[in-house]
Amino acid sequence: MTDPVTTLRDILGPKGWLSGDDAEPYQRDWLNRYGDAPLGVARPSDTAEVAAVVKACREAGVAVIPQGGNTGLCGGAVADRPNAVIVSLSRMAAIGEPDPESGSIAVEAGVVLAALHQALEPHGLMFPMHLGAEGSARIGGLIGTNAGGSQAFRYGMMQDLVLGLEVVTPDGAVWDGLRAVQKDNAGYQLRKLFCGAEGTLGIVTRAVLRLYPTPRQQASALLVMSDCAAAVSFGAFLRGEAGEFLAGLEFFSDVGLALALKHLPDLAYQMETRGNVYLLVDLASGSPRVPLDDILNSALERGMEQGLVVDGALARSDAHRAQFWRLREEQPEGQRLEGEQLKHDISVPPGAIARFIEAGNKVCSDILPGVRINPFGHLGDGNIHYNLSPPEGRADFDGRAGQFAAALASLATEMGGSFAAEHGLGRAKIALAERNRSTVERELMARLKGAFDPLNTMNPGVLVRAAQ
Amino acid sequence: MTDPVTTLRDILGPKGWLSGDDAEPYQRDWLNRYGDAPLGVARPSDTAEVAAVVKACREAGVAVIPQGGNTGLCGGAVADRPNAVIVSLSRMAAIGEPDPESGSIAVEAGVVLAALHQALEPHGLMFPMHLGAEGSARIGGLIGTNAGGSQAFRYGMMQDLVLGLEVVTPDGAVWDGLRAVQKDNAGYQLRKLFCGAEGTLGIVTRAVLRLYPTPRQQASALLVMSDCAAAVSFGAFLRGEAGEFLAGLEFFSDVGLALALKHLPDLAYQMETRGNVYLLVDLASGSPRVPLDDILNSALERGMEQGLVVDGALARSDAHRAQFWRLREEQPEGQRLEGEQLKHDISVPPGAIARFIEAGNKVCSDILPGVRINPFGHLGDGNIHYNLSPPEGRADFDGRAGQFAAALASLATEMGGSFAAEHGLGRAKIALAERNRSTVERELMARLKGAFDPLNTMNPGVLVRAAQ
Repeated sequence: MTDPVTTLRDILGPKGWLSGDDAEPYQRDWLNRYGDAPLGVARPSDTAEVAAVVKACREAGVAVIPQGGNTGLCGGAVADRPNAVIVSLSRMAAIGEPDPESGSIAVEAGVVLAALHQALEPHGLMFPMHLGAEGSARIGGLIGTNAGGSQAFRYGMMQDLVLGLEVVTPDGAVWDGLRAVQKDNAGYQLRKLFCGAEGTLGIVTRAVLRLYPTPRQQASALLVMSDCAAAVSFGAFLRGEAGEFLAGLEFFSDVGLALALKHLPDLAYQMETRGNVYLLVDLASGSPRVPLDDILNSALERGMEQGLVVDGALARSDAHRAQFWRLREEQPEGQRLEGEQLKHDISVPPGAIARFIEAGNKVCSDILPGVRINPFGHLGDGNIHYNLSPPEGRADFDGRAGQFAAALASLATEMGGSFAAEHGLGRAKIALAERNRSTVERELMARLKGAFDPLNTMNPGVLVRAAQ
Repeated sequence: MTDPVTTLRDILGPKGWLSGDDAEPYQRDWLNRYGDAPLGVARPSDTAEVAAVVKACREAGVAVIPQGGNTGLCGGAVADRPNAVIVSLSRMAAIGEPDPESGSIAVEAGVVLAALHQALEPHGLMFPMHLGAEGSARIGGLIGTNAGGSQAFRYGMMQDLVLGLEVVTPDGAVWDGLRAVQKDNAGYQLRKLFCGAEGTLGIVTRAVLRLYPTPRQQASALLVMSDCAAAVSFGAFLRGEAGEFLAGLEFFSDVGLALALKHLPDLAYQMETRGNVYLLVDLASGSPRVPLDDILNSALERGMEQGLVVDGALARSDAHRAQFWRLREEQPEGQRLEGEQLKHDISVPPGAIARFIEAGNKVCSDILPGVRINPFGHLGDGNIHYNLSPPEGRADFDGRAGQFAAALASLATEMGGSFAAEHGLGRAKIALAERNRSTVERELMARLKGAFDPLNTMNPGVLVRAAQ
């Protein structure tokens, strides 16, 4: 039998195969927690090469690990064994012509999200997916993890924005589901199933994505809220009053603001008032006839009258708006620069956000008194990045990471929510899934995996546990 | 071995089991094309009874046919063999309390769509799913067929509106996925997979649905367009100009209008101008500060300047708006009253609607000269109900129904669309799927079915062909 590396080199040519030092940048995950050295990194240039690689690996009994921008937070895009090949989609980065009348575009899986945003700009169209990693995250990875981000409450997650897909299945066949229509009910919704499958059912090679017209005006405000319950209640009010304009509804805490201001000296917070919770509100409209500033102003006045909003500033310019957004977006960076941290990706019904945070704070303070709690995230869909820093003066969590994760996952589950909102399970959260989800659910997932990938060669050990 | 009917009677009690004449109303499908007499109709009152029925049927080798409102158009909710039990969810019709801060509600699968709309009204909330059959269609069936309707381009299909599900699996286990969050990526998106599975992977018993605030003002117009391409182009313009207000964007033809006016004498069409294509535009806003009428008026003026809009009328009142909508909604009834008809549920990329209709007209006129073509539907998502009446003076299609269906399905497929947009495959369209979809796609679906329902007792012969 031929050595699989020789076969793969033959398929891919010298530009398409990396090993040794060249493979190293692909080996470890973003948080540097996972990743065995693989046999090498395949960098196919088209779908046929992806299919050939998958077939060759399957025949040789080598695991296939699809990788996009490798910005995932759960270790789902790196190898857990030496007998594996990482398949990087980075060379498949072609962006098709957008179809403005249909509101869609075909792209290859290796397209970087920010590159797509840029390519669409001159067409007056947008792909409404925004998240911190957009400068490096690739479409295939976003689909694999079913990314959400800050506009999901309005435009949906990747599963809502994918019209069609092309996927190389675990046996190396190519499924051409590249249809450009929203309404297609000719059988099971495979296109939805591959979203969030974390590369365990096949490798996404191309996608048709849904586009929207770019808004022509925006209005933004940064608000100091009286407390978290006020933020929730004001958010619900805004959905009624200005729901169709709401393009952003982000919250963060004073703990996070303080860390960001401490570590990123170029950040500007210009209000005099500080509070426990801040709300960043973005409105957008395609019509120049909508009095967006008036609508936002009157909503703020109403919020102040009701004691929900303590103080607020309206963005006077795009640069000013960008300042507001940086305060929100630098939350993870501020906390990272403070030292050790623990990340939890929670969702609860939006109306339960304040209850979750209150209960979570109690649980966490019981586990480690003085632990610094920094919840921030997406108010509109109840997605809380509930992150922790050690108590002042401590460098670590005294080995209690697992305790925090377990307690917060239980709490989210009890409240009808999820401990894996938009980062997926990867390798990091399978144990949490097994504790917090029913046997029936886990068993259905195992059967699904078995049906698509009976030999368990496609991203084994991610999402479902590897068969023994 | 006990007779399965005795077992089922014991499980369900007298109110829960119908046979003989009592079962008859459940036996045939809406279009009266399918339906063998079953052993009887099970009408369980809760999830536990559904699970017990499924288990008993499985043990006895009896097929289980889930049925909601039985308004489907593809024969997916009736039996294809005598050794079957129809499971009607009609007694499970409880509607929970809506959660306005989270924008969600829990309901049982037997809730009629119109009853849900009504229940939400006093709360200022809406469930944005509207279709002709809403007075009888039930939530479980809408989920099973992944219904779309007239607001899908804005709010999505059922798969986009379902947050959580409870499902009885083919082996009688209960999957409790009743979470009320949009962002839940703890494994495969089972909740999406069950949408559109047409009851072949399990019986949906309960759901958590996404709600939106009810708009506070509306503006509507009925427009005579210069032709179909003008309608498409004006639709794209509206999405940019008034996209966030667009709540309806329906089109119909003069053939359909004439049939409706002929057979429904109480219908009112009040403009003097007639044209080939009509557009019904609905705008809605939650904010009283939006000059909705101005926005609509100025869009119409622009459309007239560009020669796209020939004539138009703005709704002066809710009653007037209802008149406009009846002209659109009575299209199927007008055509039904004309006699024999053929229905085709097509979708193409919205920008290709005019091209599809032009090509379709040619193809159909070649198959049967003089055939009357009545395309109407949802412009925003490219969903064309491309329906046919025989040529004037003829009562039938000369046995060419299959030829029409095959030709139109090929055409939709070539254009990157679907021959099963929002009605599903049922029993009626499996052959079309086998001709128009790849072996890879059909094989993945067969594997999925096999993984969830290895004994093939759950709605066998629907969506995928029954195993031999």
